[in-house]
Amino acid sequence: MARADIGVYGLGVMGRALALNLAEQGFDVAVTNREHSWIADVVTEAGPLAGRLHPQIGLADFVAGLKTPRVVLFMIPSGAPMESMIEAITPLLEAGDTIIDGGNANFHDTRRRAAALALQDLQYVGMGVSGGEAGARHGPSLMVGGTARAWRRLEPMLTAIAAKYQGVPCVAHLGPDGAGHFVKTVHNGVEYADMQMIAEAYGVMRFGLGMSAAEIAGQFEAWDKGPLRSYLTEITGALLRYEAAGEPFVDLIRDVAGQKGTGRWTVIEALHLGQSASLIEAAVGARSWSSQAQLRARLARRYGAARGAVSVSLEQIGDALMAGRLLAYVQGFHLLGQAAQDYGWPLDFARIAQIWRAGCIIRAAVLDEIATAFEQSRGDGQLLDAPAIVAQLRAALPGLRAVAGAALGAGHPAPALVSAVSFFDTLRIERGTANILQAQRDFFGRHGFERLDQTGQHHGPWWD
Amino acid sequence: MARADIGVYGLGVMGRALALNLAEQGFDVAVTNREHSWIADVVTEAGPLAGRLHPQIGLADFVAGLKTPRVVLFMIPSGAPMESMIEAITPLLEAGDTIIDGGNANFHDTRRRAAALALQDLQYVGMGVSGGEAGARHGPSLMVGGTARAWRRLEPMLTAIAAKYQGVPCVAHLGPDGAGHFVKTVHNGVEYADMQMIAEAYGVMRFGLGMSAAEIAGQFEAWDKGPLRSYLTEITGALLRYEAAGEPFVDLIRDVAGQKGTGRWTVIEALHLGQSASLIEAAVGARSWSSQAQLRARLARRYGAARGAVSVSLEQIGDALMAGRLLAYVQGFHLLGQAAQDYGWPLDFARIAQIWRAGCIIRAAVLDEIATAFEQSRGDGQLLDAPAIVAQLRAALPGLRAVAGAALGAGHPAPALVSAVSFFDTLRIERGTANILQAQRDFFGRHGFERLDQTGQHHGPWWD
Repeated sequence: MARADIGVYGLGVMGRALALNLAEQGFDVAVTNREHSWIADVVTEAGPLAGRLHPQIGLADFVAGLKTPRVVLFMIPSGAPMESMIEAITPLLEAGDTIIDGGNANFHDTRRRAAALALQDLQYVGMGVSGGEAGARHGPSLMVGGTARAWRRLEPMLTAIAAKYQGVPCVAHLGPDGAGHFVKTVHNGVEYADMQMIAEAYGVMRFGLGMSAAEIAGQFEAWDKGPLRSYLTEITGALLRYEAAGEPFVDLIRDVAGQKGTGRWTVIEALHLGQSASLIEAAVGARSWSSQAQLRARLARRYGAARGAVSVSLEQIGDALMAGRLLAYVQGFHLLGQAAQDYGWPLDFARIAQIWRAGCIIRAAVLDEIATAFEQSRGDGQLLDAPAIVAQLRAALPGLRAVAGAALGAGHPAPALVSAVSFFDTLRIERGTANILQAQRDFFGRHGFERLDQTGQHHGPWWD
Repeated sequence: MARADIGVYGLGVMGRALALNLAEQGFDVAVTNREHSWIADVVTEAGPLAGRLHPQIGLADFVAGLKTPRVVLFMIPSGAPMESMIEAITPLLEAGDTIIDGGNANFHDTRRRAAALALQDLQYVGMGVSGGEAGARHGPSLMVGGTARAWRRLEPMLTAIAAKYQGVPCVAHLGPDGAGHFVKTVHNGVEYADMQMIAEAYGVMRFGLGMSAAEIAGQFEAWDKGPLRSYLTEITGALLRYEAAGEPFVDLIRDVAGQKGTGRWTVIEALHLGQSASLIEAAVGARSWSSQAQLRARLARRYGAARGAVSVSLEQIGDALMAGRLLAYVQGFHLLGQAAQDYGWPLDFARIAQIWRAGCIIRAAVLDEIATAFEQSRGDGQLLDAPAIVAQLRAALPGLRAVAGAALGAGHPAPALVSAVSFFDTLRIERGTANILQAQRDFFGRHGFERLDQTGQHHGPWWD
């Protein structure tokens, strides 16, 4: 058998789908997995593509069966499992070979590993893969971080398997080492925020407007035909249609949300960079609190769990989702801008918006306009004063304000929508109230402050 | 000259004040500082207490002049400066000596240093010091982490210099290694949130109710006589009284707030512990955004910087501050509860509330009730269902909801107040909307979910 073009280690949901995608695009793919039984399953699932899959049991055979310079794609849990696989495979590789980590790794790990493996002339590529199982199988969005040399080796394969948006492949070499995983982390952070705002809008419609799940499904289907078109809009419409014994299927699902870490990382990195990803924090927090089901049951008895009727229109709710989505992107790109500066990455914001237009979970019609905004002004990642965004936000903000206010007033939890308003208002007020904070800090801790009428650092008259 | 009871290294605002406090309590204090000129300044400032200060220039003399087992208190910037001082002083110390880090250290550093120095039989104590300059000088709140042995050695001195609340010293041995610095970090996080909510309330009164700074000062002075009594309430009233050329002095202060890291750390640690400190995040975010003054000026032109009139009463604003303050404490103690569990610290929540009742920046009348609540039920750090807190929150929440809603509606940035409402509503709703998130996650990523009517993990019918 000829040697394979690439090896895929890890045949879970995502690894299996990527292996089949590569095979379908005409590449020979060596496949292996820690649990050996999964290997045969993939070959069976491959059907007519089975001829392009090279199943391997041992790691040495897996590596030996690859064309040189070798490319090995790991699709395994990040953290310790990835760490030990790097240790295991490194002695089997040769100078010039490439390891791709396609998992949701912490970009700090990716930076460290890339630097360590470079000493042995091994290429380490951190690649964000978005799109879930269907995306991985038929066209994911791929965010690549690594050397230019590694990118040249990978580009043909990755371009072939990536999603296409009007013919443009949704894959890009975004920068060195951790750039790809950082962009994927922020992608996931935006995904958290968008999902949370959809869940909040659902809550307002279901419990504030008294709509049925099917009616809400119809509304999301309608939104998916307009400016709110997005994958998450689409699947929310779809999943709300399912019933079990005549009741909405979603009513059977426990309201305790899981999370794997990328949302949390986005917030933490924002803080480390001196920024705030408050919409994403609101979404992360809502998931954390959802998991405290026993406490919530106790508190419902203590305080009552009432949610009142709200008087907002569906158009306003649509506007709230649009403004909220835009503001989540604003925070995401702002964070990318800060990271590009701090880590010296040449991030191309327009290109990032472009490769998110298809394949990935946050693909949305509005990304086309965001890409255009960045094409016209490639700067610091700041979208809030890009003309196209200003026009959209100005139009959608009254709806966001109305819906967030109504939810807050009537007791519907809407942490992400209300924090979107706070974020926007804090940034659009030229003269805020942080002077009070500065006065307090100087009063109790002699921290000093700047004055509007003088240069330099000053203390207040309370110290005279 | 007799040997000193304790050495204080670092004679900035806080170090100088603590040295004088120790001297006033009858202890002999060796004092030194990297910049030697500061040493003489302290002796001059000491006046009649100068006899108890032992100025030293070199580190070796400073150490040699201490009674054994020695106690050295460092009041220097955390991070690299502390690291290099530990390196410098360790060779001069002997088994059984104690180093106290009284700075705002990251508790992870404190844990690491305590473990490393224990190998040389040196005691490393991480001590949170709150109260600003006046507190340090006349009675701070002291949060001590270290071994029982170190505590026995330090207790008499720390008890003597600590603030007293109705005779009870505001100092406690909270647990080993990083416990004291962790509690101080959370203290500062609550401080951030409380300060921010006060600044937001000020904004609503000044720009939404049209009150003058002097009128607002009067209101804070009035609140300081009731249940809202607190140090931050008091100083806000005081500082708003100052004028320059007939105008409020605060109007001269640039509205760009500094921060040193502890607020940010609180939010990051909450996330690492799987929690959310959303009120504190809102405060950290507001400070970060305040620093983007140029962007705010540009956006004010793009979107307008209008803030509308609001119709809320001063009583409602007071209730908003009370509910917000309680919820900030709720998040802080919840975080302490989680940390106690994760790090195996025997944190005594009632005792923590007690030592915060005097000396520290967040001292507030409500801490008395919080201490009582924990005395009645010492559990997981969860305050939200403690009867005394339930009663207060139920009374104050309508005001918080009204003020947060009015601010949001009229464009007054109030990120901390609105996030307080979101936090509360998310936790008091027994059946939330996280089922939608779980449905989405399963739809795109086959993540699975729990069902209300069955045990185990399930997938949705969209996978059938």
